[in-house]
Amino acid sequence: MSLHHWQSRFENWMNQHWQHGDQAHDVAHLRRVWQTAQQIMQGTDATPLVVLAACYFHDVVNLPKDHPERHLASSQAAAATRRILLESFPDFPHELHDDIAHAVQAHSFSAGIVPRTLEAKIVQDADRLESLGAIGLARVFYTSGALGRSLFDSNDPLGKARPLDDKLWTLDHFQIKMLRLPETMQTETGKKLAQHNADFVVDFMAKLCSELQGDLIGKDASVLRDFTSDKTKY
Amino acid sequence: MSLHHWQSRFENWMNQHWQHGDQAHDVAHLRRVWQTAQQIMQGTDATPLVVLAACYFHDVVNLPKDHPERHLASSQAAAATRRILLESFPDFPHELHDDIAHAVQAHSFSAGIVPRTLEAKIVQDADRLESLGAIGLARVFYTSGALGRSLFDSNDPLGKARPLDDKLWTLDHFQIKMLRLPETMQTETGKKLAQHNADFVVDFMAKLCSELQGDLIGKDASVLRDFTSDKTKY
Repeated sequence: MSLHHWQSRFENWMNQHWQHGDQAHDVAHLRRVWQTAQQIMQGTDATPLVVLAACYFHDVVNLPKDHPERHLASSQAAAATRRILLESFPDFPHELHDDIAHAVQAHSFSAGIVPRTLEAKIVQDADRLESLGAIGLARVFYTSGALGRSLFDSNDPLGKARPLDDKLWTLDHFQIKMLRLPETMQTETGKKLAQHNADFVVDFMAKLCSELQGDLIGKDASVLRDFTSDKTKY
Repeated sequence: MSLHHWQSRFENWMNQHWQHGDQAHDVAHLRRVWQTAQQIMQGTDATPLVVLAACYFHDVVNLPKDHPERHLASSQAAAATRRILLESFPDFPHELHDDIAHAVQAHSFSAGIVPRTLEAKIVQDADRLESLGAIGLARVFYTSGALGRSLFDSNDPLGKARPLDDKLWTLDHFQIKMLRLPETMQTETGKKLAQHNADFVVDFMAKLCSELQGDLIGKDASVLRDFTSDKTKY
């Protein structure tokens, strides 16, 4: 059975069974993670079917960012993935279940589990790339609105004179998580893509900080200098 | 009494009486609109105290974007502003009430009221600039999350083969409202700032559309060509 065939069956399952109101984690997100994962695994020895299944089931247990058991969601998703594959896809190769469950469990940022296999590394990188670039910006502010969190501390947007707290201020999430993602990347391709898209996020930050200072035309040069990954540029 | 004194009193009033969960319309938004309005009115004959009061009270009746009476909110805000000035600021010059109420009523995009006075034009431009640039991007996706609206139609992000509908897709709001703002600007300074910040939004759109096509590095050249205001650039 082809990859494309399994992809269709997984998407159908998701459309029927995966109901929640979080538009930052919809089937389009799963499809994009798989699209990115395919780019990252090109030329590697990764088993595509493991990567495909892990991409589609990695968020099958989807707890909100402010849920107290958020750090356990990926372990619950791994257990749920095994159950779903056994019950709803009995013809799916059983010998791949362990590797898929590991990739699902290890994908999560908040769980802090080190990926052991190439497939888990690819899925983790592909999912983290969804938190960077234009898509990452759209999703982080979407989540800000869904949780009713403030956008930024107008008096101190970069938190220079206070502890960073992304439960209070969405812009703090840029420093706490988003801009640290490139250094957590597990593959060379993932790292290159992450650095490019973190720099896009920094460019946005520089524009935003300039606007918050009342300059609607410029970009804050100190933000570009302090946060761009390619330090030779500034 | 100085402008700064009135600003402090208006902010105090807002902090005490203006309670709602919409973080895209907080006191920092009011302060930024006033900051931008000051830039726009430089060198003009506008009465600063009218502009100041209208900036601080323009959203005093704040109906959600999906509220059926949304288009009436600015008229309700104008009436509320008169009442608040009379009752809570009896020492505020009464002869300015009419001009302030007009500027508050005319600021709204959805009300479609043409501003008659220079002060109303300045307030409208300053408020519309909050929907563009980095701040505009943060606010539009925040609102998407607050309303639980989808981010984009992954199969047709620009709505080329379907009617645009920003109740369904947040990215449609870029074409329906955000990118049309520069042509609605009432002042020369406002227009220049709006075009610059609309082009920043187009740059984001081009990056987003490229990412949605699976290209995490490029920017969609057709988006830059079709939507950038300075057509000579592409």
